[in-house]
Amino acid sequence: MYTVSVRDHFMVAHSFRGEVFGPAQRLHGATFVVDLEFRRSELDADGIVVDIGRATEVLHATLAQLNFRNLDEVEEFQGRNTTTEFLARLIFDRVAAAIARGELGDSARGVRSLRVTLHESHVARASYAAAL
Amino acid sequence: MYTVSVRDHFMVAHSFRGEVFGPAQRLHGATFVVDLEFRRSELDADGIVVDIGRATEVLHATLAQLNFRNLDEVEEFQGRNTTTEFLARLIFDRVAAAIARGELGDSARGVRSLRVTLHESHVARASYAAAL
Amino acid sequence: MYTVSVRDHFMVAHSFRGEVFGPAQRLHGATFVVDLEFRRSELDADGIVVDIGRATEVLHATLAQLNFRNLDEVEEFQGRNTTTEFLARLIFDRVAAAIARGELGDSARGVRSLRVTLHESHVARASYAAAL
Amino acid sequence: MYTVSVRDHFMVAHSFRGEVFGPAQRLHGATFVVDLEFRRSELDADGIVVDIGRATEVLHATLAQLNFRNLDEVEEFQGRNTTTEFLARLIFDRVAAAIARGELGDSARGVRSLRVTLHESHVARASYAAAL
Amino acid sequence: MYTVSVRDHFMVAHSFRGEVFGPAQRLHGATFVVDLEFRRSELDADGIVVDIGRATEVLHATLAQLNFRNLDEVEEFQGRNTTTEFLARLIFDRVAAAIARGELGDSARGVRSLRVTLHESHVARASYAAAL
Amino acid sequence: MYTVSVRDHFMVAHSFRGEVFGPAQRLHGATFVVDLEFRRSELDADGIVVDIGRATEVLHATLAQLNFRNLDEVEEFQGRNTTTEFLARLIFDRVAAAIARGELGDSARGVRSLRVTLHESHVARASYAAAL
Repeated sequence: MYTVSVRDHFMVAHSFRGEVFGPAQRLHGATFVVDLEFRRSELDADGIVVDIGRATEVLHATLAQLNFRNLDEVEEFQGRNTTTEFLARLIFDRVAAAIARGELGDSARGVRSLRVTLHESHVARASYAAAL
Repeated sequence: MYTVSVRDHFMVAHSFRGEVFGPAQRLHGATFVVDLEFRRSELDADGIVVDIGRATEVLHATLAQLNFRNLDEVEEFQGRNTTTEFLARLIFDRVAAAIARGELGDSARGVRSLRVTLHESHVARASYAAAL
Repeated sequence: MYTVSVRDHFMVAHSFRGEVFGPAQRLHGATFVVDLEFRRSELDADGIVVDIGRATEVLHATLAQLNFRNLDEVEEFQGRNTTTEFLARLIFDRVAAAIARGELGDSARGVRSLRVTLHESHVARASYAAAL
Repeated sequence: MYTVSVRDHFMVAHSFRGEVFGPAQRLHGATFVVDLEFRRSELDADGIVVDIGRATEVLHATLAQLNFRNLDEVEEFQGRNTTTEFLARLIFDRVAAAIARGELGDSARGVRSLRVTLHESHVARASYAAAL
Repeated sequence: MYTVSVRDHFMVAHSFRGEVFGPAQRLHGATFVVDLEFRRSELDADGIVVDIGRATEVLHATLAQLNFRNLDEVEEFQGRNTTTEFLARLIFDRVAAAIARGELGDSARGVRSLRVTLHESHVARASYAAAL
Repeated sequence: MYTVSVRDHFMVAHSFRGEVFGPAQRLHGATFVVDLEFRRSELDADGIVVDIGRATEVLHATLAQLNFRNLDEVEEFQGRNTTTEFLARLIFDRVAAAIARGELGDSARGVRSLRVTLHESHVARASYAAAL
């Protein structure tokens, strides 16, 4: 299996509900450094998994929807904890939809699975990976 | 699949037996920076894989058993080479037991597999991963 | 000159005032990974710059005052932009005060200067350094 | 599953053919930092996946064939785009052949799969992984 | 002293003249990950060293002049070895000129010195630093 | 000022004397990842600070004297705590002597100062820097 991975980041405020979160129940924030990995079994005719330039643009556009936001005020997330795991899945779904819409080019439809990893500090990260 | 990973480190002395180890047959030492990754297919009711706070505590407690030790003098390891691979498996087993004892909370029993990675320098690392 | 540096992190929400900040005028957040560097010209009688254990505790305690907070609501910061540079200076001042109070031990009074570096992402950081 | 991974790098010039590559169609270059990961289900009699010393030598020798070259002038690569993905596969094939020739020792024939990851910058990487 | 640093990268081909360079006398290439550090003694009225957004843009524009090029064919560099050190100085000079032209804003004229660091691999880097 | 820095590592056992060291008074060990930085005000005739190849060899040879050793048994270190700071200074002195003996070439005698940084984990490091 071949993979290509690109990196970008976004910065948000949020708070969590549930005793398990301790002081993270207060409004706080995070920088999330995101690795978006594309996987496929064979390279396309150009010898690539995806166009790294386009992959970088799609990741940047996806993160721009979240960047510099207070996630507690985003209607779509009401009643949900916007944990690192949740955000990894959210970004997965949005990139998968972008691929389906052809935003990474026709060849990128050969991508078989994605893995989205969010680094929330130098000592903690979360990811979501699944087939497309 | 969702994952959460936390990082800590420990510092030990040890030596190896076997010609393959060359100068590492002498008593020397290492800093091991450890990534402990928890994996499960669905998030729990709080929207997490495991409580990162508790995961960090369990990793720290597990490494504290080894930290600042000469592994050559630990009875349990007599006759074994405490290689990076061996230590990755040892930490896996101890964290798996901690989960089974409920030390990461009831919800953490939904964790399906673990991956333990030990970085022994900027150019070498080893890991052990398995289902629980 | 000798230095010792320890690392920890904190996670906050905040917003900035001023057109120069663009979308960062909205409430957002950041993880700050902090390197605290102690500098002195000669080692103490134990052969160290500072006790790394105590240095780690003082850094952790200093960051705990900020961690999981919305800095916009901290009275002390009213009317100020809590930029990365500002926070580097704030942490410098608080660690300097801790040294003066003897919290790093008597020997640490031999520390001549500090440098505090805050990494706000994989591509941006800020620091403040000065003599004590 | 156990893994061991070693790191080295090489520096090459090359150019790509195909509109998708944009400015990378011009002759340019890259540093590739390479992680070579060996995987097996059980450790050998010495308690290791492979001898890290020998693994490091085989990786270094493999990269030396490419290092400080203009890949556009290598006969074997004529008509191919030497993308990061392509190079990951090339290095995989060469290391697999070295294992088959016994260059990592008899025990290394127990290695079940390899993963080769090439970091081309702080924000992009590619890999190839397969069973042996 | 306060600093702010931003990171970007560029990818070039080049060769060196001089026996000291050994195999690097052949046409090869490199990825240079660049840290551009701005230094000043006091923050401006907004509480910053420079606008990070503008700093990122100026760094990107400066590196775009070099990116995806064969430096051996750049007229300006004829008869010079485009070593990592040389390129660090070149980028320093170009950013210094951009500041002088006001491209980082009026406030950035308070910047007292710059440090440009080029990472050419995970094990080697070079820098140039000077007052403005 | 120009700098060039190269990286390597070594792995040792040791113990410390003094209550300040707590559990590190026991025999334990460390991996030290070492950055050796050379500084000079002008480049030499080849456009470099030092020959990176030779610098890498001198660093490797210097660390080989320590690598895979129990520092408690090295006669030269009797009665001293081989702290990270102490080792940074030791490596500084040995590299300075190598430069003086001409092992980095005649041109390297233009090097004005060195900085040696030892990373003992992902969260702690020490350094020694001085003029030659």
